[in-house]
Amino acid sequence: MAGHMVTSGKVIKCKAAIAWEPKKPLSIEEIEVAPPKDHEVRIKILASGICRSDDHVLEGLKSNIKFPIILGHEAAGIVESVGRAVTTVKPGDKVIPLIVSQCRECQCCKHPNANLCVKADIRKHTGLMDDNTSRFSCKGKLIHNFLDTSTFTEYTVVNEISVVKIDDAAPSEKVCLIGCGFSTGYGSATHTAKVHAGSTCVVFGLGGIGLSAIIGCQVAGASRIIAVDINKDKFPKAKAVGATECISPQDYTKPIHEVITEMTDGGADYTFECVGITDLMVSALKSSHYGFGATVIVGVAPTGAKISLDPMLLLTGRTVKGAIFGGFKGKESVPQMVTDYLTKKINLDELVSHTFPFEKINEGFKLLRGGKCTRTVLTF
Amino acid sequence: MAGHMVTSGKVIKCKAAIAWEPKKPLSIEEIEVAPPKDHEVRIKILASGICRSDDHVLEGLKSNIKFPIILGHEAAGIVESVGRAVTTVKPGDKVIPLIVSQCRECQCCKHPNANLCVKADIRKHTGLMDDNTSRFSCKGKLIHNFLDTSTFTEYTVVNEISVVKIDDAAPSEKVCLIGCGFSTGYGSATHTAKVHAGSTCVVFGLGGIGLSAIIGCQVAGASRIIAVDINKDKFPKAKAVGATECISPQDYTKPIHEVITEMTDGGADYTFECVGITDLMVSALKSSHYGFGATVIVGVAPTGAKISLDPMLLLTGRTVKGAIFGGFKGKESVPQMVTDYLTKKINLDELVSHTFPFEKINEGFKLLRGGKCTRTVLTF
Repeated sequence: MAGHMVTSGKVIKCKAAIAWEPKKPLSIEEIEVAPPKDHEVRIKILASGICRSDDHVLEGLKSNIKFPIILGHEAAGIVESVGRAVTTVKPGDKVIPLIVSQCRECQCCKHPNANLCVKADIRKHTGLMDDNTSRFSCKGKLIHNFLDTSTFTEYTVVNEISVVKIDDAAPSEKVCLIGCGFSTGYGSATHTAKVHAGSTCVVFGLGGIGLSAIIGCQVAGASRIIAVDINKDKFPKAKAVGATECISPQDYTKPIHEVITEMTDGGADYTFECVGITDLMVSALKSSHYGFGATVIVGVAPTGAKISLDPMLLLTGRTVKGAIFGGFKGKESVPQMVTDYLTKKINLDELVSHTFPFEKINEGFKLLRGGKCTRTVLTF
Repeated sequence: MAGHMVTSGKVIKCKAAIAWEPKKPLSIEEIEVAPPKDHEVRIKILASGICRSDDHVLEGLKSNIKFPIILGHEAAGIVESVGRAVTTVKPGDKVIPLIVSQCRECQCCKHPNANLCVKADIRKHTGLMDDNTSRFSCKGKLIHNFLDTSTFTEYTVVNEISVVKIDDAAPSEKVCLIGCGFSTGYGSATHTAKVHAGSTCVVFGLGGIGLSAIIGCQVAGASRIIAVDINKDKFPKAKAVGATECISPQDYTKPIHEVITEMTDGGADYTFECVGITDLMVSALKSSHYGFGATVIVGVAPTGAKISLDPMLLLTGRTVKGAIFGGFKGKESVPQMVTDYLTKKINLDELVSHTFPFEKINEGFKLLRGGKCTRTVLTF
């Protein structure tokens, strides 16, 4: 690999999975990836997880996303080349793209407890780079990017503020999960809720995010971690990563928050909604203890869904908050989590249920929709 | 006054304002106040503020309150006598009754960040003492108490966990506000939100609670305090206690949260809803900055009202919380606030707009309903 320099600027032809339109399988195509412009980085993707957010777009649930698009956002790779003025990564570096950018200059980046960069406002994604063009084309057509990353492709181009160097020794097919799912769940417990040692936690939803939240609760020293799902097939893995009890709402006639309130002598210290169902968010809030309980919204609800709640739940001392990417600032937290994985402070291995070659991406989506996987990772 | 001893145990005949039924004026009657039983304290009331919560009961908006009842809960007085096993106050002590009790033994009392005592659960008020009897009777009829206090009476009886000694030098007709309204607003800023120096705050609603929230923001060092009300008559007092700007939603065609978002370069650090309107709670949330804004629900909505909100508001890094009595533990905070008043760290004087003799209580309620007062204090 070349040293820290501006590289040649050639177009790369490679394979990518194109979503031409909603509700259709992805199509593996040859695409052209333009060289990185100023402040941009071109990355050779080594591994990418398939996340439910990718599927939400494919299912047409996100009205603000433009097709055709290259999905994927949870990945690890190697820097192939960099544009001018890039200083924090160089060709050959192992990196993780960041779905939550970090310009280090805006109100949020300067705020000690915020991570949602204003410069790369996640509410205003256009699917294009800052100059309103794309680095991707296929058969002469412009292809949009996704979440400033796009990782279902052999090569991608991201802004420098949307990528961070990690330890070269990290196995890509595991640490790619730190690019989205793991951090989202783990950070909701360790960073957003700030779970304290000896506390009681409840995690609603035992997909990859919920399992990662359980890991976060355990690392933070929670003494009780109650895992909730209607699919009991998920209980063994929840226990493997740290749940102390697993319950299904379908086993009770009374509402689940009443069950949990009784189990926990008045309610939990921390509850986590990791599904994206607004009624379940209210159940999570009701399951937290009056006077001091806190609920973290982690799941993404369909566009337009509303939470309807009695303000008395809040007035009586409860807190509800939310976070994207666990509230983490990626430039610091992502390399740290990779190190924590390498030193076995955290274990991602249980979260990867399937590893497929990239070409089998549509099989991965089928597993996801069938609830048959924790996380499928594609290797390139 | 006698020393620290169990006192004689005689019934006291005195005047009290009885609410015989909803939507009727209060009736000044001679009542009998039984002596305090074990762990109880009989207090001679010196001053009592009239709070909107009293009026909500009178208006019949609180379905769980039993009539006849002696309202009032924001007071200062002198201990007349104590029951057995009372150790923290003695006859002659100047005291403030606590609407949020503090047993010091339950989960909440032991929790560093909670104040809603589980032993005296505010959600389960019966209007009776712990032995299911009342210390109040009038014309042979049992009279209920209110919020474990009842202060529209010359004498009341409360549990020891619901009263705290304050500095004897404190003027009752001012520090009585620390028993409810002042602490509720002030604590929402200093304790619940933990407003930081240099921050931007928005306070919705400029009644006594909202003004107290402004004082809290100012004491905490906020550099901008935007006060919001549709009644511009309230602006001068808001500025007098620390508001840097005052705005009325009626002066704008766009929604108030958009106005505030523009005024504050993306939203405030902290917003406070001090009215009790659920739509305004959502406006307050939308007026806070994405990524790090926090909203505190202070106002009490009518029973049954629901907040309806887009979970994306939370997922994008906002927090919403609520508190009763500002989140303060009364046994420590109330004496401290009295001291802070005496040393001029906080100024309550602006909050007391009218002082009436107790017998004019119905005039005080009329002022309240007409929006003509900040706080009316009754003296005995």
